[in-house]
Amino acid sequence: MIDRLVESIRRTKAPICVGLDPQLGFIPDEVKNKAYREFGQTLEGAAQAIWQFNKAVIDATWDLIPAVKPQIAMYEMYGIEGLKAFARTVEYCRSKGLIVIGDVKRGDIGSTSAAYAAAHLGMVKVGENTMPAFGEDICTVNPYLGSDGVLPFVKECAANGKGIFILVKTSNPSSGEFQDRIVTDDEGQACPLYELVGKKVNEWAQDPALIGESGYSEVGAVVGATYPEMGEKLRAIMPKSFILVPGYGAQGGTGKDLVHFFDKDGLGAIVNSSRGIIAAYTKEPYADRFGSGAFADAARQAVLDMKTDIEQAIS
Amino acid sequence: MIDRLVESIRRTKAPICVGLDPQLGFIPDEVKNKAYREFGQTLEGAAQAIWQFNKAVIDATWDLIPAVKPQIAMYEMYGIEGLKAFARTVEYCRSKGLIVIGDVKRGDIGSTSAAYAAAHLGMVKVGENTMPAFGEDICTVNPYLGSDGVLPFVKECAANGKGIFILVKTSNPSSGEFQDRIVTDDEGQACPLYELVGKKVNEWAQDPALIGESGYSEVGAVVGATYPEMGEKLRAIMPKSFILVPGYGAQGGTGKDLVHFFDKDGLGAIVNSSRGIIAAYTKEPYADRFGSGAFADAARQAVLDMKTDIEQAIS
Repeated sequence: MIDRLVESIRRTKAPICVGLDPQLGFIPDEVKNKAYREFGQTLEGAAQAIWQFNKAVIDATWDLIPAVKPQIAMYEMYGIEGLKAFARTVEYCRSKGLIVIGDVKRGDIGSTSAAYAAAHLGMVKVGENTMPAFGEDICTVNPYLGSDGVLPFVKECAANGKGIFILVKTSNPSSGEFQDRIVTDDEGQACPLYELVGKKVNEWAQDPALIGESGYSEVGAVVGATYPEMGEKLRAIMPKSFILVPGYGAQGGTGKDLVHFFDKDGLGAIVNSSRGIIAAYTKEPYADRFGSGAFADAARQAVLDMKTDIEQAIS
Repeated sequence: MIDRLVESIRRTKAPICVGLDPQLGFIPDEVKNKAYREFGQTLEGAAQAIWQFNKAVIDATWDLIPAVKPQIAMYEMYGIEGLKAFARTVEYCRSKGLIVIGDVKRGDIGSTSAAYAAAHLGMVKVGENTMPAFGEDICTVNPYLGSDGVLPFVKECAANGKGIFILVKTSNPSSGEFQDRIVTDDEGQACPLYELVGKKVNEWAQDPALIGESGYSEVGAVVGATYPEMGEKLRAIMPKSFILVPGYGAQGGTGKDLVHFFDKDGLGAIVNSSRGIIAAYTKEPYADRFGSGAFADAARQAVLDMKTDIEQAIS
């Protein structure tokens, strides 16, 4: 999967991922009301509004980008109906040739992580048959439980040519509360916890079965755009790992914050923007130019602008 | 919810939680084949087998226990159909008066954690209507992202009388890889990361809006039975918090390991066993006495034996 990601980034010249984190609060009334007329103000109605919104955004942006990142929480919130919209979004994006990064942040004890890995990256066996469950291409993983919570996902990557991004330093304001605490690593060096996790990511990433022709590993990391100086350090600690960088745009990260997340070849990172793209029509400079009826066109313009911003930053 | 949990533990005299973590590997062939005949060897067939297995276990044990803990990964693995079996299990257990602890280990940045909290503990709003999504009573939370990943769940507890158990020290072999690293707490004291997380849990738990008439808080912690000495320390650090103790039975924890997780009043902890109960029929001393046709009776006997084991340990 990592080679496909590298190839797609090269082709689109856009190390950009569109975060499909739809919220009813910013889905245009036209879309919501149409869904509610058909399915009522119900979980099914909400799921239909989300799906129709997503489809329009995908149709307006898919040719510009290598990947999308649906945040499963925004779908899980609407129960089974919401998760059907998640599954449908994954399937539709894959049919468009997009790489789908399921932002699921799963992680548990070994046998349970294996079930999550099967759910999101693998195949499940029922009697004589095998089939995918949600079938994303890549998913995000929470490392708090240590190796035996992470390795089932790594194993699935090697077995099925899938990828993972492990949370190392998250983009949120309180991420330092635990992640920045100084610990002692296995060599007796003092470092923040996120660096220790980064070192473990680098260890997990080294398995030759995980390294693609691009030289990158299927095992990557999440490092928030909101912490650029840490990004620089972590880029060096995990030379084989792609970094998924959330926090650009709505969370405050800008193009110039991103430069150190990339390698010299302009690869090694993919930057996510969610609300900054999919809800672009609600804010300037897009609100004036694009009304809610043109929310998908606003998303396309926001992708083009983000591409320029990142190009300028890393050139 | 914490007062209901305390009352139920007092009534049943069983600080026990049955982990509903069904795996096709130990669901009896009779149950699976019946489901496959009806729905095929499909995700739907797997989900039906899981649901029928759960229902039989619940029917055989519900009067003995205060709570169940379905592990959502085991359902998510079978996609939408699996999650329907999860939702049905939650609903059925609640109809039996059981407290349902959704073992979901969710945690994300603030706005996303709010979506997870709504999915599992809260109500969601669609147009003019509000409704629950999965509607568990309590859920487990991963703290790696810090306060702003946890507080949306805490808020939901206060608003809806729900509960959470935050991962502090997990039961798996590699949990120490990050959780045991020595850090410096906010008072400048050196302690393992799990203790620092425990101290934060204790802070979060103190809000008077979260403290029930029992004196316990809606905010509890997960501490594995496999680390009894840490349980003792954490019991003292989090006096208002109930501790959910996984790792009993199949993972190696025994009754005598549990004594320090409890308060002097015999409350303060609830011990989970999953495979040790629901797959009891596959192992001695139950295999001989109960065949696969009596798997639910074996589960009931395993609950009774676990109750005796814990009673003896904490008396």
